[in-house]
Amino acid sequence: MNLKDTIRTIPDFPKKGIMFRDVTTLMTNRHAFAESIIQMCKPYQKMIIDNVVGIEARGFVFGAAAAYELGAGFVPVRKKGKLPFDTYEQDYDLEYGTDTLELHADAVRAQEKILLVDDLIATGGTAEAAIKVLRRAGANIIGAAFVIDLPELGGRKRIEAMGVAVTTLVEFEGH
Amino acid sequence: MNLKDTIRTIPDFPKKGIMFRDVTTLMTNRHAFAESIIQMCKPYQKMIIDNVVGIEARGFVFGAAAAYELGAGFVPVRKKGKLPFDTYEQDYDLEYGTDTLELHADAVRAQEKILLVDDLIATGGTAEAAIKVLRRAGANIIGAAFVIDLPELGGRKRIEAMGVAVTTLVEFEGH
Repeated sequence: MNLKDTIRTIPDFPKKGIMFRDVTTLMTNRHAFAESIIQMCKPYQKMIIDNVVGIEARGFVFGAAAAYELGAGFVPVRKKGKLPFDTYEQDYDLEYGTDTLELHADAVRAQEKILLVDDLIATGGTAEAAIKVLRRAGANIIGAAFVIDLPELGGRKRIEAMGVAVTTLVEFEGH
Repeated sequence: MNLKDTIRTIPDFPKKGIMFRDVTTLMTNRHAFAESIIQMCKPYQKMIIDNVVGIEARGFVFGAAAAYELGAGFVPVRKKGKLPFDTYEQDYDLEYGTDTLELHADAVRAQEKILLVDDLIATGGTAEAAIKVLRRAGANIIGAAFVIDLPELGGRKRIEAMGVAVTTLVEFEGH
């Protein structure tokens, strides 16, 4: 099973010059979806992971299945305004402007062992914001797992420089 | 394990008079999360489900874990403008105005066996729109599974009237 072959590339989405890596074609392939979760969880099977944290929205898909596989809970990190209870907030930079991630203030306890999951790591800006907001809650972030890495954009190094181990399943050149 | 006790109620969210059923407290309880997926999948374990379809965004969490448990693929139904490839669209009514769901046009093949998943069924408007867009793709919708039912709002009957079997895990009075 070559996971990379199940990912569709859509040129010029969401704008001219971007090669968009469409992971929905991996999700809908039952063999590829199961394999991606098994590979993603493998380094963490012998640890106790308390919660898998998924970043909205595609991170919910891989993160929730990984939580189920690991016997962990699942915690969503969401765009601002979506969570109903008290939250911690963390701003992060986009190409133009900024955005905000939120975490329920009581979702993660101090020292809890967390695996962070998203579908793709590019510049690492979103993952960095998720790590910051999780650390404000006192989380012990054991690792960050992504299906797709775009290594030219430097996200892996940025997250590793924060002291978080990074695992990825598939690499694409360019951005 | 009483799943209902793990769901937090937040009064007056998102507006005065609404008792919001916050399912994130179920998700982050590892025992409750696993139990909810096992119960949700039980009626479908002896069938071949080709794809579990999750409705954005909390439906991704339960839908993806259910897909993994059932050995099925996962297909997202998303808010307008989020999917990168050709889509079918379906409008649906909100309290004020309308919204639109999208499905990738090639995500589901004709006659594929589908389980639709969301966290909650209230009036059933969103689920009805998801069923309509899936049927446009030729899907054979075997069932619709929700964690929470608000029976006073009539969603279950509305979906059953479309010829789709509905299963739910927990009921709350009111809305």
